[in-house]
Amino acid sequence: MTNDRIIQLGHLYRENLLSDVVPFWQAHSPDREYGGFFTFLDRTGRRYGEDKPIWLQGRAAWMFATLYRLVEPRPEWLALARHGCEFLDRYAVDASGKLFFCVTREGRPLRMRRYVFSEVFAGLAFAGMAAATGEEWALRRAQALHRSFVRYLRTPGLIPPKTDPRTRPMKSLSPLMCLLYFSDALREVDREGSYEEVIDACVEEILRDFVKRDEDCVLETVGPAGEHLEGPDGRAMNPGHVIECAWFMLEVARRRRDPTLSAKAALLVDIALRRGWDERFGGLFYWIDVEGRPATQLEHDMKLWWPHNEALIALLLAYEATGESRYADWFEKMHAWTWAHFPDRECGEWFGYLHRDGSVSTPLKGGLWKGMFHVPRCLLLCWQTLMRLSTRAGPAGGP
Amino acid sequence: MTNDRIIQLGHLYRENLLSDVVPFWQAHSPDREYGGFFTFLDRTGRRYGEDKPIWLQGRAAWMFATLYRLVEPRPEWLALARHGCEFLDRYAVDASGKLFFCVTREGRPLRMRRYVFSEVFAGLAFAGMAAATGEEWALRRAQALHRSFVRYLRTPGLIPPKTDPRTRPMKSLSPLMCLLYFSDALREVDREGSYEEVIDACVEEILRDFVKRDEDCVLETVGPAGEHLEGPDGRAMNPGHVIECAWFMLEVARRRRDPTLSAKAALLVDIALRRGWDERFGGLFYWIDVEGRPATQLEHDMKLWWPHNEALIALLLAYEATGESRYADWFEKMHAWTWAHFPDRECGEWFGYLHRDGSVSTPLKGGLWKGMFHVPRCLLLCWQTLMRLSTRAGPAGGP
Repeated sequence: MTNDRIIQLGHLYRENLLSDVVPFWQAHSPDREYGGFFTFLDRTGRRYGEDKPIWLQGRAAWMFATLYRLVEPRPEWLALARHGCEFLDRYAVDASGKLFFCVTREGRPLRMRRYVFSEVFAGLAFAGMAAATGEEWALRRAQALHRSFVRYLRTPGLIPPKTDPRTRPMKSLSPLMCLLYFSDALREVDREGSYEEVIDACVEEILRDFVKRDEDCVLETVGPAGEHLEGPDGRAMNPGHVIECAWFMLEVARRRRDPTLSAKAALLVDIALRRGWDERFGGLFYWIDVEGRPATQLEHDMKLWWPHNEALIALLLAYEATGESRYADWFEKMHAWTWAHFPDRECGEWFGYLHRDGSVSTPLKGGLWKGMFHVPRCLLLCWQTLMRLSTRAGPAGGP
Repeated sequence: MTNDRIIQLGHLYRENLLSDVVPFWQAHSPDREYGGFFTFLDRTGRRYGEDKPIWLQGRAAWMFATLYRLVEPRPEWLALARHGCEFLDRYAVDASGKLFFCVTREGRPLRMRRYVFSEVFAGLAFAGMAAATGEEWALRRAQALHRSFVRYLRTPGLIPPKTDPRTRPMKSLSPLMCLLYFSDALREVDREGSYEEVIDACVEEILRDFVKRDEDCVLETVGPAGEHLEGPDGRAMNPGHVIECAWFMLEVARRRRDPTLSAKAALLVDIALRRGWDERFGGLFYWIDVEGRPATQLEHDMKLWWPHNEALIALLLAYEATGESRYADWFEKMHAWTWAHFPDRECGEWFGYLHRDGSVSTPLKGGLWKGMFHVPRCLLLCWQTLMRLSTRAGPAGGP
């Protein structure tokens, strides 16, 4: 990758972030009347629903706080981060202390789910707020949500299991991934906690129990000691999760200057690309069966925005860490496919849901799952990484 | 529709049922070692999973019992119906009397779900067995499951609600549809129960609260008195459910010789076709937003086998009931698209999951949801209806 190309790409990612994606959410998402953020936004930004999913409230608040901290201290970004945190503080928690999955526009309880990912994204929001402002109350909220998340994960039976653990004990990749990322975010603002140990334990468990090098795959669900499970669930791999996992580890490795961890994480990137890339139409599959048996998820061959966002981040970080040109080549390939299909040049922001062939399945910009998160996070992290690449000497600087 | 065409179609549906679809399941589905039926079958019938979903155990047992009763009394069909009922009897029920959603190959508990549709399909199996043999134990099982289903539906809070009913009370079409069909099946074998009243109540509630004639739609979820609900869930219509509902009512109307009910049911068919047919690629959409806002289900524009199965049945029954040629024309259109895309001429049986454009998304023949049910039920009911049409004088006989 030449320095000119790096600078050109950095400019593109910055521009898309600051002149298109962030303005889209800033214009259409905040609810000035009841607080929080609208997320059910159609192609043009018009609302098609008013409920407030808690994951996306937390993610948007984290994003605004992070833009304020890392891009520039615009008061409106900080105000929007606070706006999101206040809604979470007021309406996200039920009587038992567990967080809802979704509330109404006014903040009335709609849906509680078994699992505890609302805790992660609300926790990130408060951690982001603490990082941006140093405010003590935000740090305390983030710490409490981290403690609650860890307690739920480590107390057998506290999250009612979907599958009877007496018949088939199992564990999944997603909670570990989330614990890793959440802990790394808290570590940045809380110098007291033992987050590094939690991070090490997550990395070790993922590499030991979920990564199957002999079979060139990373499983989504395994037995308690990494055993293979019966049927399609036991062979399911989500390339987006694998590649997200990989860049969480690459970021930890970069911070720690740990080339051994970088190499291990880069291996996950290799596996995700080898198994997840669609040779026929391009793009990353959403789910695959690692033995090539029939995939059972209806959406298995759709191309979703977020795995592509994660892949762009992971490839630049892998290139930065290893200097290997194949990561730069893969980045160009992923970049070309992603930018040819996802950004909506007419109405702004990115499409989220494409058919296998890259055509748009639904033009919504936000909903229950897509909000102000993966696209801007990707644009920001890629831009930052490209800036580092362009200023440093060394293998990645190029001729 | 000419009589020649009716006879030709009848032959096609019969042949596909008896020489292709039933033999596929008979060869690959029964588990001779542990009982019950395998349902995770790939394109060729090879197993890709061993778990036993309870819905599909009940549906297959019902189908074998019904083939025995309505087609011919082949001992192997009765034996397979009994084989399925025995597995259900032994392994489907938990300690509280509620039925599991899925068990292992050996019958060990895997997954219990909030709702109670396993009760419906196990109940149908026992009712089918009672209808086929007159065996008292099977009738008693079916009655008990019907009582349990009704109790769960009518006792507020007994099924833990997904959405907080204090914030947003709601009700769905599927339990009513199931209650209607299950009650009609039991009525056939149990002359003592008050099933006709239950059927009348279901029909009335569906027509009153879910069908919105002014908006030309049938909603999947509404408020307790049919109110419109907030957001995409409140605008979601599933054309397959609507058309399935329609033919359940058309069957009741045929039995009762009730042209008023037939006309009301035919209206649902009209709505489902007007709203659900894909003018661009053909076939029925899986979900639509009735106001044309973005659909949020990832699979919204996929073409699934079962809505097409239900549509073929509904169109023939609507044609039989009303004699209106547009139902015959629509049947031909639906028949042409369905038979051009779903049957697998190479390996037998039908594909289940197509992309919007009609290409195959996954070639599996069975899984957690697809089993020996919608395809053979459609073939059998269409064949029967075509036979009635071919032998009767009157508007449908044709020139």
